[in-house]
Amino acid sequence: VTDSPHDMLVEHLQEAHAMEQAVMRMLDSMISETKAPDIRDELRHHREETERHERLLTERLVAHGSTPSRFKQSLTIGGALVKGVGDKVRSEKPLRNARDGFMTEHIEIAVYELLERIAERAGDEETAEVARRNRADEEAMAEKIASNWDRFVTLTLEEEGIAAPD
Amino acid sequence: VTDSPHDMLVEHLQEAHAMEQAVMRMLDSMISETKAPDIRDELRHHREETERHERLLTERLVAHGSTPSRFKQSLTIGGALVKGVGDKVRSEKPLRNARDGFMTEHIEIAVYELLERIAERAGDEETAEVARRNRADEEAMAEKIASNWDRFVTLTLEEEGIAAPD
Repeated sequence: VTDSPHDMLVEHLQEAHAMEQAVMRMLDSMISETKAPDIRDELRHHREETERHERLLTERLVAHGSTPSRFKQSLTIGGALVKGVGDKVRSEKPLRNARDGFMTEHIEIAVYELLERIAERAGDEETAEVARRNRADEEAMAEKIASNWDRFVTLTLEEEGIAAPD
Repeated sequence: VTDSPHDMLVEHLQEAHAMEQAVMRMLDSMISETKAPDIRDELRHHREETERHERLLTERLVAHGSTPSRFKQSLTIGGALVKGVGDKVRSEKPLRNARDGFMTEHIEIAVYELLERIAERAGDEETAEVARRNRADEEAMAEKIASNWDRFVTLTLEEEGIAAPD
């Protein structure tokens, strides 16, 4: 059990780090499933950002005499939240990846909003700044997804061979 | 396998309905865990909205000759995405419920953004309007959470008995 803002900060840094690692695996999976070249490029760009986020979090953990390793395998992120329509053969990948991506960006935004404030309570302005910067990238990515809902539906209908009504 | 925008619409209506049911269970759990009376009131208010969302979706399913029942048990929503810091005894409920709530509102926003467009492709303006209205409630709730990150951290520190540094 911990009882200082500092201990709480280190735990939340570890959680954020594990989250970014899970996001990296999710992005790899999305990149492999995405056919549209421009969307794949955006995902690759965000994967680079995610790697940077992870590095910055690792640096802050090291600054606190900690390491990220022990939580490496403990997180999964994904579309597990909205699933269960089980008798459907269509995969609807563009649509589902967009939705899962949008959701994930907002988990990350929430994690960084909280990390920033916990860091401030612990007097660690450097971590607060990392949290703000990483969050800005997540917000930009969430915006990109949110401005393309129509296209994700169109791509899904195309991939599934579903025709518009007459 | 389905191959019309109409079939796809019905499936997404069912998914949205199952999602709202899962959200209802999540809100019940959050209400029981929340000590601050004003936050509990907000959660109760949103639970009433969620019940209305579910009813509206059921009506649209019935209008399409379908029913919501078979997916009732198939969804879970929750903080399962960001977990795994296992050796910690503190529960950090205010902070974690805020984060899970924020994430869940954005799943719902994404689901309704997509449902609205799928309904439009299927020529069902009534469902599109339900999706827009339900989404507006989710966006308002997400805003409420997002304007209170600082308070959720304060409440967590208080509940856990964690003192600020000197």
